[in-house]
Amino acid sequence: MNETLQSLQFSSNTLFLMLGAVMIFAMHAGFAFLEVGTVRQKNQVNALVKIMADWSASTVVYFLIGFPIAYGINFWMDAGTLSNLFNGKVVAGARGFDLVHCFFLTTFAACVPAIISGGIAERAKFWPQLFAGAILAGLCYPLFESIIWGQYTFFQDWLNSTLGAKFHDYAGSVVVHSMGGWLALPAIIILGQRIGRWTYGISQGIPVSNIPFLALGSWILCVGWFGFNVMSAQDIAGISGLVAVNSLFAMVGGILFALVFSKNDPGFVHNGALAGLIAICSGSDVVHPFGAFFIGGIASVIFIFGFQWETEKMKIDDVLGVWPLHGVAGTWGGIATGIFGQKFFGGMGGVTLAAQVAGSVAAVIVAVSVGTLVYLGLKSTMGIRLSDEDEQRGADLSIHNISAYPERDIRT
Amino acid sequence: MNETLQSLQFSSNTLFLMLGAVMIFAMHAGFAFLEVGTVRQKNQVNALVKIMADWSASTVVYFLIGFPIAYGINFWMDAGTLSNLFNGKVVAGARGFDLVHCFFLTTFAACVPAIISGGIAERAKFWPQLFAGAILAGLCYPLFESIIWGQYTFFQDWLNSTLGAKFHDYAGSVVVHSMGGWLALPAIIILGQRIGRWTYGISQGIPVSNIPFLALGSWILCVGWFGFNVMSAQDIAGISGLVAVNSLFAMVGGILFALVFSKNDPGFVHNGALAGLIAICSGSDVVHPFGAFFIGGIASVIFIFGFQWETEKMKIDDVLGVWPLHGVAGTWGGIATGIFGQKFFGGMGGVTLAAQVAGSVAAVIVAVSVGTLVYLGLKSTMGIRLSDEDEQRGADLSIHNISAYPERDIRT
Amino acid sequence: MNETLQSLQFSSNTLFLMLGAVMIFAMHAGFAFLEVGTVRQKNQVNALVKIMADWSASTVVYFLIGFPIAYGINFWMDAGTLSNLFNGKVVAGARGFDLVHCFFLTTFAACVPAIISGGIAERAKFWPQLFAGAILAGLCYPLFESIIWGQYTFFQDWLNSTLGAKFHDYAGSVVVHSMGGWLALPAIIILGQRIGRWTYGISQGIPVSNIPFLALGSWILCVGWFGFNVMSAQDIAGISGLVAVNSLFAMVGGILFALVFSKNDPGFVHNGALAGLIAICSGSDVVHPFGAFFIGGIASVIFIFGFQWETEKMKIDDVLGVWPLHGVAGTWGGIATGIFGQKFFGGMGGVTLAAQVAGSVAAVIVAVSVGTLVYLGLKSTMGIRLSDEDEQRGADLSIHNISAYPERDIRT
Repeated sequence: MNETLQSLQFSSNTLFLMLGAVMIFAMHAGFAFLEVGTVRQKNQVNALVKIMADWSASTVVYFLIGFPIAYGINFWMDAGTLSNLFNGKVVAGARGFDLVHCFFLTTFAACVPAIISGGIAERAKFWPQLFAGAILAGLCYPLFESIIWGQYTFFQDWLNSTLGAKFHDYAGSVVVHSMGGWLALPAIIILGQRIGRWTYGISQGIPVSNIPFLALGSWILCVGWFGFNVMSAQDIAGISGLVAVNSLFAMVGGILFALVFSKNDPGFVHNGALAGLIAICSGSDVVHPFGAFFIGGIASVIFIFGFQWETEKMKIDDVLGVWPLHGVAGTWGGIATGIFGQKFFGGMGGVTLAAQVAGSVAAVIVAVSVGTLVYLGLKSTMGIRLSDEDEQRGADLSIHNISAYPERDIRT
Repeated sequence: MNETLQSLQFSSNTLFLMLGAVMIFAMHAGFAFLEVGTVRQKNQVNALVKIMADWSASTVVYFLIGFPIAYGINFWMDAGTLSNLFNGKVVAGARGFDLVHCFFLTTFAACVPAIISGGIAERAKFWPQLFAGAILAGLCYPLFESIIWGQYTFFQDWLNSTLGAKFHDYAGSVVVHSMGGWLALPAIIILGQRIGRWTYGISQGIPVSNIPFLALGSWILCVGWFGFNVMSAQDIAGISGLVAVNSLFAMVGGILFALVFSKNDPGFVHNGALAGLIAICSGSDVVHPFGAFFIGGIASVIFIFGFQWETEKMKIDDVLGVWPLHGVAGTWGGIATGIFGQKFFGGMGGVTLAAQVAGSVAAVIVAVSVGTLVYLGLKSTMGIRLSDEDEQRGADLSIHNISAYPERDIRT
Repeated sequence: MNETLQSLQFSSNTLFLMLGAVMIFAMHAGFAFLEVGTVRQKNQVNALVKIMADWSASTVVYFLIGFPIAYGINFWMDAGTLSNLFNGKVVAGARGFDLVHCFFLTTFAACVPAIISGGIAERAKFWPQLFAGAILAGLCYPLFESIIWGQYTFFQDWLNSTLGAKFHDYAGSVVVHSMGGWLALPAIIILGQRIGRWTYGISQGIPVSNIPFLALGSWILCVGWFGFNVMSAQDIAGISGLVAVNSLFAMVGGILFALVFSKNDPGFVHNGALAGLIAICSGSDVVHPFGAFFIGGIASVIFIFGFQWETEKMKIDDVLGVWPLHGVAGTWGGIATGIFGQKFFGGMGGVTLAAQVAGSVAAVIVAVSVGTLVYLGLKSTMGIRLSDEDEQRGADLSIHNISAYPERDIRT
């Protein structure tokens, strides 16, 4: 009977993480439709194909290089034979748990190119961006992951001894979202503005194409996010109802604050939900639901005003607002854990503001440096931007030889 | 080892209910797209934002007021500290089970404004309706919930002693759906017809905008519904394959009857599936799959003819037909449990027709009374209806300052 | 405590299979939207209603006839009373496991008409096709199922004794997909080409209507597929992380090969993912992830060139390409298990190429024969094709009396 129980435990763990992986995989459909709804019709097909392609390249590279870097488990060299792998003889874990674990973490890594995709939409070349995404998801992301969650503990140990606690990032406000958002910033700047976005320095708002698709994308992301956060326990024994409810409250805070601060704008309301969810990843296991509500609400306000400042004042043409959304709100989430995680605010304690700031800032530095390097390198070699003519025809016709609504477009 | 087993049980329970909560949360995307597809294009954005906003307000109010009313568990006052809450020291349940339980039941409460939203679409003011939805989900709904499922047992005890059985409503045909549908009826009547729906007393059918979106909404609802019904066990030990299969058969009955009785109309087929699912919630754990098939089929017919009677004869402008769909089919579901739940019809027994009728009628009385009070009150204070000009421009432009397809609408 | 453990095991099994059933049920929404996006606008409503109707008819017929044929469990005759059934007294399994098992396998059977639907789109009569689908899902499919997975073991025993191994089809590359695809082939040929697809023998490509909907369908299918494959363990104790990761890698292989071989065509990229998933069903528990990658990649190439050969050379008007997609790629999947499942290729062994070929070919023979019989029979009795006039008006108006976008179509 001991054996039966252990077997059920192993199976339940594999199921738990598999469900999480599938829920986050589904979120990538959300990234796709959020972008489809936001870009102009002439770039909708490109949005869809980019997400599928980035996902695929990330999967391969993370499996081969990223996961071994971050966790020291190398399926293709260590396991020898498949039956070793499957039976958990070489690597820990039975019922293929380690494989599902890698799948689960792949879904995190693949968020990086998906986030960047939204910022550089409507004007980037296809293959260079696929290549950049693969490098970032399979190499840059795992390096930072390895020192926060992974096999190299020196950074966390140093924080712990000097700043009183490790850097706490339960589900990746910083490791995943801020990393993606701050990597996107140099990419967007290096790529430059879309043609016609500013004429004689005057902002020419480019209207979004399809709010129902934008909302569909947001809904898919919101639903999958519960897998992102809850399954970050990575073990069914670690499941926490608090994480689920904090995710809920941060999302709700994000929605309600966006309702008020954006004057009922559908784009901000649906992205506000995401801002809340991005910011709560980090502290979802240690803050109080009321804390989560305000973390999410503030994240939403950061997004709204950050996006307006970024585009209107700084003239950075961040199409989906991924830098304020994932970057700044992610950083806010990392820092907020150091505030609302304190017992004074009803939190569980065990975190310090200093360590949270240190970890959050470290991510920004890594992301901006690597992003600048990679995109400057690509710009000077392969080139990263569509020709003006291609951009004006739209990425769909110039890259994919088809429009999003061929029947209608061919008829007319 | 005893401890390992208990831990696995606790974790599995939390996972079980979390999955249910997320599946029902996803259903709210279904409510949104069902409405997007049914209303005119000029009101699609409003449909999307309303569901997000209603969800958010309901979450906050149900957590603070509704759940304490219904079950006597008050997270924010009793628990004291978060670690008490999380460890289940103050309230029963470990791994944050109670929090997830509240999340799960929030998803039920939030159906109430989502249902009403479909009936009053295209002409209601935004903030008063958000306010009404919050009151109804956070205060009215939990009061009835508290006497059927919750901490106050006097009504059920009285039914049991006088009518031979308690009122049986496994997953909320009556407590959730009929409550929502019958609350919507006075709201719809008090709000009045859309401009142009009848001219000189002659019905002017207003065509739906987008059947693929309507179908998408229906599909999302159908899929999530298995969480609604199966996870209503609220405990993994109570899971029942019968509930899943009865849900399936009621849905299938709803579809097939709608195919025949509506002469293959896509709107009725996709809503017929929902009618079946609404009606089976109540008895899904006690009827035979064949019983479920007919409960669903009859519900579908009730919806089709109820909707035609309501709109064409009674001139009640119920845009999505939520009164016949959720209200009448929900009531039918409550009563049908008293028929098909009998052993004579292959059911499990333990229910009486009298108690089922009593409970179902009680819900109607509560809903109609409270709905009338709340909406009359709001009408005479804040006002509940858009100005004629705003209604004719559409809720999207007049409330949200944007259309659903800005790129196209601005170009042309 | 023994009892507690056993109860948790039973409950976990029921939950496991219920989740799988719901995930595959959701895939049918994917079939619907894949077809909506691919057919012309005048046939979109028909695509949606067909999938719902086929699903419903399949459910009833498989429950009554198919499941008893395949597994010898007859709920409506053997169980006697519902409480026997539910308590697992007559049939094995507690917590309604057998009922959920039947639900799970219904979702497989219902794929058959859903697959055919895509091939014969835009010109088939409604009721004859519904009838054909019910016969095929409820009678033809279970017969083959019964000798591969079910109660009749003679074929498998014969293969085992003569060809060294049973025919291995873990999740139905052959039993489900190739069966559906090869049944569709005679249906498509007997039905004939759409009006205007070839004029004077010159191919007139008919443009697809809506790539975002096509992509949505593909995404829904991809996500649900993890239920299709992983839950094919049919028991939580049999869960295998390898199956999940192999599904992932076959999908990714399908996407990446399609990117290259189709020159970045969105239709092929989104269908290439499906080709990979179709081909990996069979061997997902025995091949290495790298093997899965190539199985999926090759399946994608088979689909791309098979579809071009089928339509351009053979002039078979297979609207969604279901014969190369489900039929040929499914057959390839069955055979590939005999190659990549060998230990030489890093597989688990226990399979032989000869047995895989035999089983795969047997399915083709059964499908083509039965498909020809059924559709010739229907053609000569009920008729299977819309009148030319109805086809040109579109199935939506001629069958369902409504277009997909009534508000727009009535206005203009």
